[in-house]
Amino acid sequence: MLEGLDTQTRLIYEPVKEGLTRVEEKLRQLSADEGTFPHLSELLDYVLQSKGKRVRPAVTLLASQVHPGPSDLPVLMAAAVELLHIATLIHDDTVDNSALRRGKATVSNLWGQNVAVLLGDYVFAASATLVCDTKNVRVIRRFAETIMALSSGELLEYFHSFSWQQTRQDYEERISRKTASLFRTACETGAILSGAPEEHVAALSTYGHNLGMAFQVVDDILDYEGDPLEVGKPVGNDLLQGVVTLPALMLMERYPVENPIRVLFESRGDGLALKRVLEMVHNSTILEECYAQASGYCQQAAAIAARLPEGPYRRSLLEITSYVMSRRR
Amino acid sequence: MLEGLDTQTRLIYEPVKEGLTRVEEKLRQLSADEGTFPHLSELLDYVLQSKGKRVRPAVTLLASQVHPGPSDLPVLMAAAVELLHIATLIHDDTVDNSALRRGKATVSNLWGQNVAVLLGDYVFAASATLVCDTKNVRVIRRFAETIMALSSGELLEYFHSFSWQQTRQDYEERISRKTASLFRTACETGAILSGAPEEHVAALSTYGHNLGMAFQVVDDILDYEGDPLEVGKPVGNDLLQGVVTLPALMLMERYPVENPIRVLFESRGDGLALKRVLEMVHNSTILEECYAQASGYCQQAAAIAARLPEGPYRRSLLEITSYVMSRRR
Repeated sequence: MLEGLDTQTRLIYEPVKEGLTRVEEKLRQLSADEGTFPHLSELLDYVLQSKGKRVRPAVTLLASQVHPGPSDLPVLMAAAVELLHIATLIHDDTVDNSALRRGKATVSNLWGQNVAVLLGDYVFAASATLVCDTKNVRVIRRFAETIMALSSGELLEYFHSFSWQQTRQDYEERISRKTASLFRTACETGAILSGAPEEHVAALSTYGHNLGMAFQVVDDILDYEGDPLEVGKPVGNDLLQGVVTLPALMLMERYPVENPIRVLFESRGDGLALKRVLEMVHNSTILEECYAQASGYCQQAAAIAARLPEGPYRRSLLEITSYVMSRRR
Repeated sequence: MLEGLDTQTRLIYEPVKEGLTRVEEKLRQLSADEGTFPHLSELLDYVLQSKGKRVRPAVTLLASQVHPGPSDLPVLMAAAVELLHIATLIHDDTVDNSALRRGKATVSNLWGQNVAVLLGDYVFAASATLVCDTKNVRVIRRFAETIMALSSGELLEYFHSFSWQQTRQDYEERISRKTASLFRTACETGAILSGAPEEHVAALSTYGHNLGMAFQVVDDILDYEGDPLEVGKPVGNDLLQGVVTLPALMLMERYPVENPIRVLFESRGDGLALKRVLEMVHNSTILEECYAQASGYCQQAAAIAARLPEGPYRRSLLEITSYVMSRRR
């Protein structure tokens, strides 16, 4: 599993590399189980082989090491967390009409929107079925609540799109639901299933929330400054889709009278108006301030991790917080 | 709750009418819970007020009466079953590009496909969250497996569409997943949560499966002979969408050499070819034989119900099997 990753990520994942290998086995099992239905099996192979960084299952396994034990339940949970993430990507790519994901054609691109909707449903359900195998009702409920948070976050984003009257609070509520909720659940359930005391469960839950918030803020910054080849999308893509993230919010705060985002949205799709907004952002300290906000979340996460019991997992939880920031170019 | 229903349905639901009223309250609660997010609350009101016959929650409550007790868990389960049904309708209407459902505009028609995908996800998750409140891991797992069955059944239908090389076995596998699975789970979980002995749980599970199979076969027949105003779709709609149901399968069996369904599909969308297939079906005993098959499922369900302990619920479980057949015009 670790072979496809860069050196820094491999070092971070070292304490849980065996667990991650078993997560991959669980994911492969899912497509083998549907062997009598070759179309579905082929679709599952396609989406499960599209390897991301597996950061969510890694934090589940790391969180379970605060109170290390022989239990296999964190592996089940980590596989479920990754499956849930994959399901959301399938539906998000459908909703956004994206052709590519990590340089590979999306399901909706290859098989059409209908297959993507139904396959996403299937993968959602498969993830929930895995969680049920933990037989832990508290964990199962948190998982179901997380799916509600993820989908309501995406709905919020959709309804807020092309609106120039948003606040930072709206943005934070949205990214808390659509991104941080899964990081939080990934950490929290890893802790619960390893039998960690409530104090550590709460700490890891807050750690996960902050890590997820930082992750999304950095993602949103990369949309303003990312190399299109690396991020896989053109710069300014969020604005083109009407999505107002932190840099745009800060720009609106600076120009309350002649709101440049309003000008952009009223000109729908005008390349010059977009170029103007991007220039205004780049000619200001906005992106620095956005990084500072992400860094603030990371510092909160790191401070929590630093108070957890000593162990190799702890160094990894700390290093992930630096890693999130290093996605900066 | 019962006021909108016809006399026959009201009589069938009589033993569980209080439970059904509480199911409605649970559904309304869902939209009230999202009061801080008016867009979502409005969407939920729209889909939850679109009243179907609530047959699935009714069978959950009836099944729970085999072993009647003071527990409120069957009500929770019944609400979850209805929510799951609503979630599948939202996604099915999106996939089928349907403009109307029970005479009312669909979510995808009013708010677009994107909102329909995300709202469906949210309602799926909300149904799972309700099931978690039963705290019964066996029931929760059956529920997650049912979502897998439903979505894989829809995927099977999609991949089998416009194929003239299908068997009755393919059809039965498909409708077992896409329709009967939820009826089965509705009955089975009602029994489990009321603390019924395993023998009755197994009996009600089989009852639900047979009822669901009959329900879908009758639905598929209505597509060949239904009044477009009543069914809400033009006659022959399934064939136009490439969906081969039992009447078409029987027609192919009768004409193995010059397969009329093949002719139809190769002419894609040719009105004359469709008319010819419909005529061939109507000039044969095919629809009678389809009803006989549906009736066979109902008889199996009724035979099981008849062996259950005496009680008002039992008469209702028996009457539902006749009711399913009476949807015939």
